[in-house]
Amino acid sequence: MSTITTRAEALALDRTDQLGTLREAFDLPTGIYLDGNSLGPLPRVTREALQHAVEIEWGNDLIRSWTKHGWIELPQQIGAQIARLIGAKPHEVVAADSTSVNLFKLGAAALRLQTGRRVILSEPGNFPTDLYILQGLTGFTPGAELRTVEPAKLEAAMDDQLALLVLTHTHYKSGQVHDMARLTAAAQKRGALVLWDLSHSAGVLDVDLNGCNADFAIGCGYKYLNGGPGAPAFLFVAERHQAKIASPLSGWMGHASPFDFTDDYAAAPGIDRFLCGTPQVLGMRALHAGLSVLEQVKPRQLQDKARRLGQIFLERVLEAGDGSLRLLSPRDPAQRGGHVSFAHEDGYAIVQALIARDIVGDFRAPDALRFGFAPTFLRYVDAWDAAEALLEIVATKSYDDARFRTRAAVT
Amino acid sequence: MSTITTRAEALALDRTDQLGTLREAFDLPTGIYLDGNSLGPLPRVTREALQHAVEIEWGNDLIRSWTKHGWIELPQQIGAQIARLIGAKPHEVVAADSTSVNLFKLGAAALRLQTGRRVILSEPGNFPTDLYILQGLTGFTPGAELRTVEPAKLEAAMDDQLALLVLTHTHYKSGQVHDMARLTAAAQKRGALVLWDLSHSAGVLDVDLNGCNADFAIGCGYKYLNGGPGAPAFLFVAERHQAKIASPLSGWMGHASPFDFTDDYAAAPGIDRFLCGTPQVLGMRALHAGLSVLEQVKPRQLQDKARRLGQIFLERVLEAGDGSLRLLSPRDPAQRGGHVSFAHEDGYAIVQALIARDIVGDFRAPDALRFGFAPTFLRYVDAWDAAEALLEIVATKSYDDARFRTRAAVT
Repeated sequence: MSTITTRAEALALDRTDQLGTLREAFDLPTGIYLDGNSLGPLPRVTREALQHAVEIEWGNDLIRSWTKHGWIELPQQIGAQIARLIGAKPHEVVAADSTSVNLFKLGAAALRLQTGRRVILSEPGNFPTDLYILQGLTGFTPGAELRTVEPAKLEAAMDDQLALLVLTHTHYKSGQVHDMARLTAAAQKRGALVLWDLSHSAGVLDVDLNGCNADFAIGCGYKYLNGGPGAPAFLFVAERHQAKIASPLSGWMGHASPFDFTDDYAAAPGIDRFLCGTPQVLGMRALHAGLSVLEQVKPRQLQDKARRLGQIFLERVLEAGDGSLRLLSPRDPAQRGGHVSFAHEDGYAIVQALIARDIVGDFRAPDALRFGFAPTFLRYVDAWDAAEALLEIVATKSYDDARFRTRAAVT
Repeated sequence: MSTITTRAEALALDRTDQLGTLREAFDLPTGIYLDGNSLGPLPRVTREALQHAVEIEWGNDLIRSWTKHGWIELPQQIGAQIARLIGAKPHEVVAADSTSVNLFKLGAAALRLQTGRRVILSEPGNFPTDLYILQGLTGFTPGAELRTVEPAKLEAAMDDQLALLVLTHTHYKSGQVHDMARLTAAAQKRGALVLWDLSHSAGVLDVDLNGCNADFAIGCGYKYLNGGPGAPAFLFVAERHQAKIASPLSGWMGHASPFDFTDDYAAAPGIDRFLCGTPQVLGMRALHAGLSVLEQVKPRQLQDKARRLGQIFLERVLEAGDGSLRLLSPRDPAQRGGHVSFAHEDGYAIVQALIARDIVGDFRAPDALRFGFAPTFLRYVDAWDAAEALLEIVATKSYDDARFRTRAAVT
């Protein structure tokens, strides 16, 4: 992937960018928003959809909206919208609950399928909630055990006790992407099942779950899918597993006939059995609308642009910088998701100094500066300008100011 | 509780109703909405709060809103708002996930506290998702067992194997209210813990969890709490249990320091450990706003008015009807929650005929007509007029029409 050495080249790239008009679909704040990997911005269509949901659907039609406005079908409709972005069939994905809750459901279901195997394998430094949920799950499952080993040793750690491999496809901090096809095949060869967390991949990488023969996946709705703060999450169950798998969280929305009000649970056919309680309608409405922005876009286009944006940024920082920013992400774009991270001992203050200039990235403890390059609304010139601002703040040490050093509770 | 025999008396009651002005806080649809026990109507303040949340918080301030607009504190703030309605301390309640997910968390946590006891006791005909979740939980917990016995036999069924009693305080169909103090004491005397589902009680009855020494409770945000479709649910853990209880769904929002991004789970102190994934912010905003409508109201006022509304309705139907509507609810208001149900073999069609007149109740299979008397926005004259409409539709058999007999998927 070639990079550029002047701002004029960035502007030239924007002029021929096939995704350039997508930017108009969003209500963007002033400045350069490099946190679409944490909370995607507000799509204009979502503002309208939510107003309709509140005033007409809830306000006027009330409970009739479950059918009249199709509330009851939103989990499956959203599932189908997400499926095309992650290489799945429409009926293999459903929107529900949070990423954490969905990991618990599928982790427990997988352990139950894998009689006689009790080990879940993951990596240290995986996104914390994934490890926490797996610790909770194994703590509540007699005999079950969570093992974490460094990525390079994963394959060696796969033995005949392995029930389930759980990895985040794109690492939340470094942006490093696992080889989904290779690791899935290696684990399956040992008789294990494989679950991928796509939180930092869906909507930005060209994910191919079925091409990799993945068993299960989960992911987040509020990052590159633009579903809004705390949006519903999604889960994927490969068709071949759907008939024989059971959710521990067997709530009424996963029942074959929820409105028959019978006392005994009977799992719905297919993926629907992984629904649990009443869906959060406002969040579903927002996610449904946000996903419509991606309807005409190919995942490969998103991946190409995101990686190119990140490459312009990181090459400029590396080439024009003083060396104090250490690259945490792979330099090779083929190994990287949509975000780029650097380490710096004053990382927190530098991020705050950038935010004061309306260039919004985020800080991840202990020392990472993280910048997300969402391909839907960023311009190539934004990547260039963000690099220039970062370089200037570091070179002038303008971040060395008390107002940038005070830590907020949430970072 | 005295009742009335003329419409003029209903109008007179409205003129002196201390809660009468609360009605102005809502955007109400045309007609008489008797389904606030299923989905509460839209409070005006919520419409404004959601517009602000979408356009300013999400649209402009994006991830900064976690601190700037206090998103991160919403689960606890809402918990405190709900606590005063259910006889709990502010730090004993938190908003999170769905009622179903919260039941799973607390059910699993309770089983774990109760070493050597593996029975969960409930009643047949309890709200289905409660039974389904308990079936899922016991199915995934070796040795655990769910038993259901009729209400009259509950105390006799409490033995030294009983780990947890799970009951819905106000029955979703009949509106029958369990004696929380007596059943809690009886179960605790046998060494069991007790969990109350307050979905049909919170915001309409004068619930006193701590006065009854309850251990745990869960409940729904979208009924009498007016939190909007699929609103976040809540859960209560008595202070005395908080330090020694663990959630199986140990997601990052329940961690003592979620933003330290450490690999090992450490439960947050207190009720916060029952948070799991990222909170659904739009739903939390709506619930927070909806609860503000109840801020100045005493639960006892809500209870008195709801029961009186229900009594006017049911007495009129019983006294002026042809006997074809069979009362499913207790006639004694002291034994009843906010809704009143009748059985009729043509129940489905009668409910549809009422809806065609903008009088919205609901149908619960196989034959129940259910009418909710939310004390916040209904007038006494609404209860009277709804009874008159029901009586006329039944007397004239005007419901006997093909357009009222076609079943929708969701009822």
